[in-house]
Amino acid sequence: MSVRGIGVELRCRCIETERNVQIARHIESVELFPPTSHCKDTEIIATLKETGQQVCLDTTAPWVKKVIQRMLAK
Amino acid sequence: MSVRGIGVELRCRCIETERNVQIARHIESVELFPPTSHCKDTEIIATLKETGQQVCLDTTAPWVKKVIQRMLAK
Repeated sequence: MSVRGIGVELRCRCIETERNVQIARHIESVELFPPTSHCKDTEIIATLKETGQQVCLDTTAPWVKKVIQRMLAK
Repeated sequence: MSVRGIGVELRCRCIETERNVQIARHIESVELFPPTSHCKDTEIIATLKETGQQVCLDTTAPWVKKVIQRMLAK
């Protein structure tokens, strides 16, 4: 469980980020939350196909940036 | 109303995309949906601050790409 909860948060949503690059091919959608007064980091939460599980992604990881760039290119 | 609905869709979620660049500063979060067998386009749905309204963004618009790049840079 890497996502704290859904909805309006008064702190960061992500507790830890997913390290397994393999999940890239199981991503159904990706949600980006820019920094707010409650959380200084941009947070990226991916929803996985089939399970619908939500995992936090590391915004600084090259593979994460690549996943998003690839989505934007289509 | 530019978003058809939330949840699993069997067709594209977006009917039309937002043309007003001014909304960029009102974006609370952005959700990216890669192409599927039901919708050949990547779809980007932004949730707006205050109202919580959801609008579709044009994936090819330079300002949209810029909004996302800026989020990734933080």
